[in-house]
Amino acid sequence: SVNPDLASERQTASFCVEKLTALLDGGAEQTRIRRAVVAAIQSDPVFSRENQYFQTQNERYEAAVRKAVHLQKKMHEMGWTENGPEYKYIYRALSGDVAFLLHRVFMRSISVLGSDKQIAKWIPLATQLRLIGSYAQTELGHGTYLQGLETTAVFDIATQEFILNTPKISAMKWWPGDMGRSATHTVVFAQLYIHGKCYGIHPFIVQIRSLQDHSLCPGITAGDIGPKMNFEAIDNGYLMLKNVRIPRENMLSKFCEVRPDGTYVRQGSQKINYFTMTTVRISLISDEVLIPLMKACTIAIRYSVVRRQSKLKPGEQEAKILDYQTQQEKLLPQLAAAYAFHFINDYLQELFDRGYREIQRKNFDMLPELHALSSGFKAVITHHCTAAVEICLRACGGHGYSLLSGLPSLYTKILASCIYEGENTILLLQTARFLIKCFMAASAGQPVPPSVTYLAAVKPGKCPAKNKSDFLSPDIYTEAYQHVAVRLISSTAAKLQDLIQSGAKKYDAWNQCTVQLVQAAKAHCHYITVKNFAETVEKLETKAGIQRIMKHLCDLFALHGIFSNTGAFLHDGYISAAQMDMVTASYLDLLAVIRKDAVPLVDAFDFTDKSLNSALGSYDGQVYQRLYEWAQKSPTNKMSPAYERYLKPLLHNTLSKL
Amino acid sequence: SVNPDLASERQTASFCVEKLTALLDGGAEQTRIRRAVVAAIQSDPVFSRENQYFQTQNERYEAAVRKAVHLQKKMHEMGWTENGPEYKYIYRALSGDVAFLLHRVFMRSISVLGSDKQIAKWIPLATQLRLIGSYAQTELGHGTYLQGLETTAVFDIATQEFILNTPKISAMKWWPGDMGRSATHTVVFAQLYIHGKCYGIHPFIVQIRSLQDHSLCPGITAGDIGPKMNFEAIDNGYLMLKNVRIPRENMLSKFCEVRPDGTYVRQGSQKINYFTMTTVRISLISDEVLIPLMKACTIAIRYSVVRRQSKLKPGEQEAKILDYQTQQEKLLPQLAAAYAFHFINDYLQELFDRGYREIQRKNFDMLPELHALSSGFKAVITHHCTAAVEICLRACGGHGYSLLSGLPSLYTKILASCIYEGENTILLLQTARFLIKCFMAASAGQPVPPSVTYLAAVKPGKCPAKNKSDFLSPDIYTEAYQHVAVRLISSTAAKLQDLIQSGAKKYDAWNQCTVQLVQAAKAHCHYITVKNFAETVEKLETKAGIQRIMKHLCDLFALHGIFSNTGAFLHDGYISAAQMDMVTASYLDLLAVIRKDAVPLVDAFDFTDKSLNSALGSYDGQVYQRLYEWAQKSPTNKMSPAYERYLKPLLHNTLSKL
Repeated sequence: SVNPDLASERQTASFCVEKLTALLDGGAEQTRIRRAVVAAIQSDPVFSRENQYFQTQNERYEAAVRKAVHLQKKMHEMGWTENGPEYKYIYRALSGDVAFLLHRVFMRSISVLGSDKQIAKWIPLATQLRLIGSYAQTELGHGTYLQGLETTAVFDIATQEFILNTPKISAMKWWPGDMGRSATHTVVFAQLYIHGKCYGIHPFIVQIRSLQDHSLCPGITAGDIGPKMNFEAIDNGYLMLKNVRIPRENMLSKFCEVRPDGTYVRQGSQKINYFTMTTVRISLISDEVLIPLMKACTIAIRYSVVRRQSKLKPGEQEAKILDYQTQQEKLLPQLAAAYAFHFINDYLQELFDRGYREIQRKNFDMLPELHALSSGFKAVITHHCTAAVEICLRACGGHGYSLLSGLPSLYTKILASCIYEGENTILLLQTARFLIKCFMAASAGQPVPPSVTYLAAVKPGKCPAKNKSDFLSPDIYTEAYQHVAVRLISSTAAKLQDLIQSGAKKYDAWNQCTVQLVQAAKAHCHYITVKNFAETVEKLETKAGIQRIMKHLCDLFALHGIFSNTGAFLHDGYISAAQMDMVTASYLDLLAVIRKDAVPLVDAFDFTDKSLNSALGSYDGQVYQRLYEWAQKSPTNKMSPAYERYLKPLLHNTLSKL
Repeated sequence: SVNPDLASERQTASFCVEKLTALLDGGAEQTRIRRAVVAAIQSDPVFSRENQYFQTQNERYEAAVRKAVHLQKKMHEMGWTENGPEYKYIYRALSGDVAFLLHRVFMRSISVLGSDKQIAKWIPLATQLRLIGSYAQTELGHGTYLQGLETTAVFDIATQEFILNTPKISAMKWWPGDMGRSATHTVVFAQLYIHGKCYGIHPFIVQIRSLQDHSLCPGITAGDIGPKMNFEAIDNGYLMLKNVRIPRENMLSKFCEVRPDGTYVRQGSQKINYFTMTTVRISLISDEVLIPLMKACTIAIRYSVVRRQSKLKPGEQEAKILDYQTQQEKLLPQLAAAYAFHFINDYLQELFDRGYREIQRKNFDMLPELHALSSGFKAVITHHCTAAVEICLRACGGHGYSLLSGLPSLYTKILASCIYEGENTILLLQTARFLIKCFMAASAGQPVPPSVTYLAAVKPGKCPAKNKSDFLSPDIYTEAYQHVAVRLISSTAAKLQDLIQSGAKKYDAWNQCTVQLVQAAKAHCHYITVKNFAETVEKLETKAGIQRIMKHLCDLFALHGIFSNTGAFLHDGYISAAQMDMVTASYLDLLAVIRKDAVPLVDAFDFTDKSLNSALGSYDGQVYQRLYEWAQKSPTNKMSPAYERYLKPLLHNTLSKL
């Protein structure tokens, strides 16, 4: 039985939910395949997540290994293959709660960086899980700045081996997943030395645990780095190497090789490697960032029509909390952001597929733009979505704080996406460097990549909006975003030049501009997101109410961005104070409009109750019943020794006093 | 041995750290007492927190009970009393990691709401921990809106008892601390019914567990609500009552009494009760909000001078990350906020002490202002500090995400302060209601309370700053904050009036203004915080460099607020675009100035390594060593059954293949 407060929300949907789901999936056939995968996974008790909020780190790890091993079997049973259409939905259906993810990165790095011989040797073993791999790049003292890695690999001509060492504690490998307890092998990134000369960072396959009894190999110190904010299922590990000898053949040698006589040979272009790292940033957006936000919106919005608090009108019953403007203003912009980023993700995926095809044809022209876009959007989307999930959590009051709401684990997991695969601030500065370069080029009349041609067409002027409904025109707000991006990029470029002309060293001038460079990079990505959303809406079919509601969400996303960042638009008077008041009025009006479709809009994300794993977000909205039933299963509802040891002695003789 | 990168930071302090510590403590004698308490607690192994990041919820609960019981003994041993000068430092020294905190609320509610007879009966038993109390107000379906509570207490004249019931699932008591597993008694808030008539919410003492064997009493269903984002040590509980009969004497009856014949008598004023709730909001700021922020700043800033990454200047060694402008811009404003809120907390404490004295003299005039201030500042400070701790966590990159950094637990704990003791948005709207009322009164020439007299003196005009150094004048920026507060309050009051005049119902008009009302309430609190910081700095002694560095922090806090919220200041042109550029320049300059004293400024908070419980924040800065040593102790570094069960069968026969 569906909670009537939730049921009533579904009766008045202004659009066809099933059609919107198909749009999000990329077609009704995709929806069908996705649902089949989800059903198969979620009906299998081995993949159950029901106890996960009660489990210790040890229990979570064990369950993740069990699931990973079982998944091999399941895929065979279901006829799913790595190249089949089902594959991309498996991880989503498991909510990422499975081991051996770094084993995949181990395989990918061998496939990309290894010679044909190396691929032929290692990939079949890895595919059959006859060894377990990891990927050991990050060190205790070194992350994003790869050149700073300290692990060494010295070539010994006499034995035709590399000797690997961790010269000091900051060089210890730290964080690699699957390495703390599972891995038998890992790809170690180390500074290559031949005859005392350093050739920079190279990848080496190193066995770290015995295949016989899983004991650590000689010279290896390794273990688990302990508890984290989330990722309990993953055995992130540490690794120290002491005179570990590996054969010459274990250096991955597609691009670089050390010949038996110690000659170092570099072959082909390494650019393609950077492109692999670039694509990882894009590929994580969907599963690790958008799905958590969509789940958080689903949970918080369903809860907000079931939870009633205080009276909106005197004499009536307590109101659904989603009827309060403040609650709408918390949640609905996050919902709009989920859609905005879904569409920009489609755009980026397409762009990267195209880039990949070009690169296969040895055309590397798109690389700088793709690097800048992947860096900037990874940073902007992870940052925005992390903040959005936190808002959803806090908008559910006390119950949002219970692990059983599902929101804390969504938050603590998405938060990591701001840090891994490139720390966000550093990534934004890489985007900024590209933007400044392009701005200079554009100013000098040189050609620039497609995504930044707008920098060449700087138009002064004012926003032409005359009344609040003008701000529901995509041209009006897209233009405003573009104006701000250009202003921030050009003014920071000017500051940079001024500093250098006043005698500052280039690196010093750069550092003094970084706070503003970060703002400029964000403005650029925000502009492209708004523009892409508006263009996507334009192209949608008008039937079934889809285009209408998407247009509202696009308007809301755009106006929320202006409302939350008024200074950027007011600064040079592009938007006047009177116009800003119109923005505010239009924005607040939109909240009330979208509120009516809020539940259908999250229903369209099509999460099953098992996917959400939340007492607040279930499809039937039986929030209180579920919280109560679930809490009773907590291990904290078994007797603890605290009573016998500590409480009984205190309480036992009180009875006579009462 | 102190990490040389950290040691060098201390050698160049521009002020006397010990003097600043004494200032924060309220005098050198207070510092001495605090340190003695901390030393006594932290040298006692029972109070150790070293294993806490590895413990399950059950283990944390048990440790908290052990500590609470041991604390009784310790206080006796040390000669500490509840009225002694040491008392306020005990909880801080324990980092709140102790059971029976709600037992204290149980006692306080009896002391405040109970008759002399009730106090005489219950308080001695509770003081000796011969029973364990809790405080059962919140229900599954009801939080901030107390009138909505559904638990009933029906008076039965025949037996002279109250019959307590939980009429439906949403009426189940949910969240009370110490109730899930420990409490024998609790104060239940329930709707009182006599002869079928409802008299509203009243407090009743109910026994829930046997003193003999701790089994649940007849009619009681109770247990633990399960895992939360933090507070593992606390057994937050649920409670259902089914025809639970308690004697007439168990209704707390200082202000309201039910006579044997069923007559309901209300005595005296209940206003004092609200004042108790008000003071709780202020009292939590110090231990639950400011201390965590100060700890987070200490950890993140010490780490940021030990961690080196990338090169700032070509050819040099990798730079301390605190030398990057972006890192300074993350952390230093949070440091300034910690000081700003420390001083506003002093101001509020003083104001509330004064208010308390007035109220004891039956003068209730200050109540509305105190209520508005406590609501607004609770919301603004908890919100700001929660965001600040999150920034500190993220500024430490991957290591900040390890529980061993101490930052995740600080974040997940401080986050709760935004929700408990009044949800922040609701509190801000209460402040806003007061502000609108005062603005109307002031506009009509009526007198208003001291903190809002500025509303009466609305001056149009522009910011007079001529160059960037003018923005280091407290008059200039305080005036700007005042201007914005007045503008937001007056414009929202005008919108409210317009809506009502256009025929909107009052409650509807209010709801349509709530997003802006929240902004207005925040602006008011922000203004008072800046003003108070500036006035505090003015009064400081100039010697030992204290006033100078506090002035810098005050400037930074004020300018950061403008820089982060430029639109509010630009909107009506009070600050022009050219002036805003001066603000930005001044603000960025200040970062570089304060960066030099960043470590001494966190050293002045005077946390011991045991208080911080962080691998990143230790006084000696031996970050990597500590992470490694600590991680090795994690229970995830013991053998898990996953190997035998799942990995061994996969790996065992691979050996022959390699």
